[in-house]
Amino acid sequence: MTDRQKLRIGLFGYGVVGQGLHDVLNSSCGFKADIVRICVKDPSKKRRIPMEHFTFNKYDILDDESVNLIVELINDPVAAYEIVTEAMKRGKNVVSANKTMIASHFRELVELQEKYNVSFLYEASAGASIPIIRNLEEYYDNELLHSLRGILNGSTNYILTKMHNGNIPFQQALSEAIELGFAESDPTLDIDGWDAKYKLCIITGHAYGLFLDPDEVFHYGIRNISRFDIRYAKEKGLKIKLVPFVGKTDDNTITSFVLPRFISPEKYLYNVDNEYNGVITEAAFADKQFFCGKGAGGHATGSAVLSDISANSYGYRYEYKKFRQGIVTDYTRDYKIEIYLRYKNDADRELFKFAEISEQFTSKTWNYVIGVVNLRNLYELREQLPSMDVFIINTGRRDLNNVDPPLAGRAATEGFI
Amino acid sequence: MTDRQKLRIGLFGYGVVGQGLHDVLNSSCGFKADIVRICVKDPSKKRRIPMEHFTFNKYDILDDESVNLIVELINDPVAAYEIVTEAMKRGKNVVSANKTMIASHFRELVELQEKYNVSFLYEASAGASIPIIRNLEEYYDNELLHSLRGILNGSTNYILTKMHNGNIPFQQALSEAIELGFAESDPTLDIDGWDAKYKLCIITGHAYGLFLDPDEVFHYGIRNISRFDIRYAKEKGLKIKLVPFVGKTDDNTITSFVLPRFISPEKYLYNVDNEYNGVITEAAFADKQFFCGKGAGGHATGSAVLSDISANSYGYRYEYKKFRQGIVTDYTRDYKIEIYLRYKNDADRELFKFAEISEQFTSKTWNYVIGVVNLRNLYELREQLPSMDVFIINTGRRDLNNVDPPLAGRAATEGFI
Repeated sequence: MTDRQKLRIGLFGYGVVGQGLHDVLNSSCGFKADIVRICVKDPSKKRRIPMEHFTFNKYDILDDESVNLIVELINDPVAAYEIVTEAMKRGKNVVSANKTMIASHFRELVELQEKYNVSFLYEASAGASIPIIRNLEEYYDNELLHSLRGILNGSTNYILTKMHNGNIPFQQALSEAIELGFAESDPTLDIDGWDAKYKLCIITGHAYGLFLDPDEVFHYGIRNISRFDIRYAKEKGLKIKLVPFVGKTDDNTITSFVLPRFISPEKYLYNVDNEYNGVITEAAFADKQFFCGKGAGGHATGSAVLSDISANSYGYRYEYKKFRQGIVTDYTRDYKIEIYLRYKNDADRELFKFAEISEQFTSKTWNYVIGVVNLRNLYELREQLPSMDVFIINTGRRDLNNVDPPLAGRAATEGFI
Repeated sequence: MTDRQKLRIGLFGYGVVGQGLHDVLNSSCGFKADIVRICVKDPSKKRRIPMEHFTFNKYDILDDESVNLIVELINDPVAAYEIVTEAMKRGKNVVSANKTMIASHFRELVELQEKYNVSFLYEASAGASIPIIRNLEEYYDNELLHSLRGILNGSTNYILTKMHNGNIPFQQALSEAIELGFAESDPTLDIDGWDAKYKLCIITGHAYGLFLDPDEVFHYGIRNISRFDIRYAKEKGLKIKLVPFVGKTDDNTITSFVLPRFISPEKYLYNVDNEYNGVITEAAFADKQFFCGKGAGGHATGSAVLSDISANSYGYRYEYKKFRQGIVTDYTRDYKIEIYLRYKNDADRELFKFAEISEQFTSKTWNYVIGVVNLRNLYELREQLPSMDVFIINTGRRDLNNVDPPLAGRAATEGFI
């Protein structure tokens, strides 16, 4: 057996996830790790455990020689970046769940691990309780991965589920999500698709070995979704889900984006509702695989953090195997997507430069068109889109680009995943 | 980075999986491993690669000092046991996919790994392409696992899918499965539930740390399923799947069994059709998780074998963490199950000692009863069952035993998984 290192943890943040981790750690039969100290921001806030466990000065933890693992679970990505990098520079291993921070400094954080010979694990930062990073890194390290897509944001999925089932407007569903703690009081990160994009970028690093600048990746959220869009989907027997996608366009090139997508009932993602997340991988030999689990909540996320802490005690590190293989070298936005566009003014519609149109509908209240656009054009519109009176949904047509070669056995299994 | 060991592989068996592995290995961009030699049984059989790659004497490989990894992919469990144990005794690491052999000698094989300080990996032996063992071992090593259930046998699932969709009799569906290579020419292992049970026993070792004697575990297959049973299920909007189950009955005790089970449309297993496998874990903090992927086929299984080979090159070993924790110590068959029993003679029905009956139906052609039986009684009937003119299906009622405590958030998510 590997010798397990005795862990003395310095914890940053004691919010939903921090408290969740605390619960999970206390009930874990696997191993005991001491939380030496907890650093929090707000001295006035009432805590559920005695105040002597807390500090408000990060250096009480960072400079404590006896602390050998930093667990960073705060919201503020700037403060998180400082904590994580300062910890690494002091030779401390780090576990983090901060997708915004990791995606924004991905490459540098990978280099720092090498430079200071420390381990940096962040399974909970993408897909919460779903062990997708670990599986991409370890299990699919030799797989020829065609694509990965899924539902990675619990808040928007909860909102979309409520709108679909309860037929309630976006704002009401959003308020419910905030009340239940499935969405932040400032939900911009979630509903505009930033959160899903940051997670997608982290996954892309382990799936293909590219550490993308998130600004290079197109994202579009559900802020502008209307009951018309929901009604249209229901009439067609479909659900609308916010689905990040990354996939190969040729042997050395990938594309990626975050877009709402129509999902038909025979697809697994159709039943991924409420705060659940689901990830679908398509590979040459393993073929299609589907992972599903809770994408939000202190305990589900805490269990992923605990798993990283435990792996840490065994000396586990990400090898960034796909990055070392260096097979995927390029990123493209030259990619055809068929979209449903709900719009009011023809002027808006023109901006999308539809290459090909298969359906259109006009009425006094709303219009929609279904046709093929290029991801390049969507990317050029990215700043105006949120303020435009339109909504975009990826129809999920697969035959537009000559990629995603038919998989072994797809004929037999098409539809299930 | 960890140094990767250069692998020189001695391969036993060149059937569907062996050839699948060969394809996967040749197309893997991850790393190159040399297959030094392939040992096969039948000298007369025509092979798709030159004969100089083959040998018919296992010692040409076992005694080859230059071979540092044995990959065992033959059908015969007795010969497989000899190859694997002789390899370990020679200090060679081993990868195997032979569930019958592993389940039958589980404890001894674990001890041999320690004794001879070798690594023995067998992800492909349970769930084929689904990385369930690795995830139980690594990712859930600290989770309080309530239960695990799923579809682990591709052949029976293919047969059940065909019977449900095509409304064809069992024998015809079976013949199709054999033609397509989803079932062995001797399908006993699959259709009587042995295969699913062996996989369940292997999973149990990593989920709870108990290495069960397969003879202690009740299993019942689909050999006696009739179109009446399928019709009954369809009338109720249900599907019938062969579902192995293992779960806690108290902190230190588990139970397990293999039974056909009714699955309703909102459950994930409902869409796990054809040769696909699916596994559902329920844990205290990660809550419910679902993994789905191909459960048969040379390439899907080959990709799992390759993943073990790759892990091997990084020096990976199973830690058997749950076994070392030693929390689960007992196994019980005192467990209530509600079953649908289709029968002809009241005498047969009496044998089941129903404790409680909720529905019964009699007609000229067939009768059924739905009620609660004890797993103990089913186990006592295990020898007669296959020859009796009855069929048993687990209704999946969860409230019979005071276990499976409600999970965090189940209220919000009940039904999805």
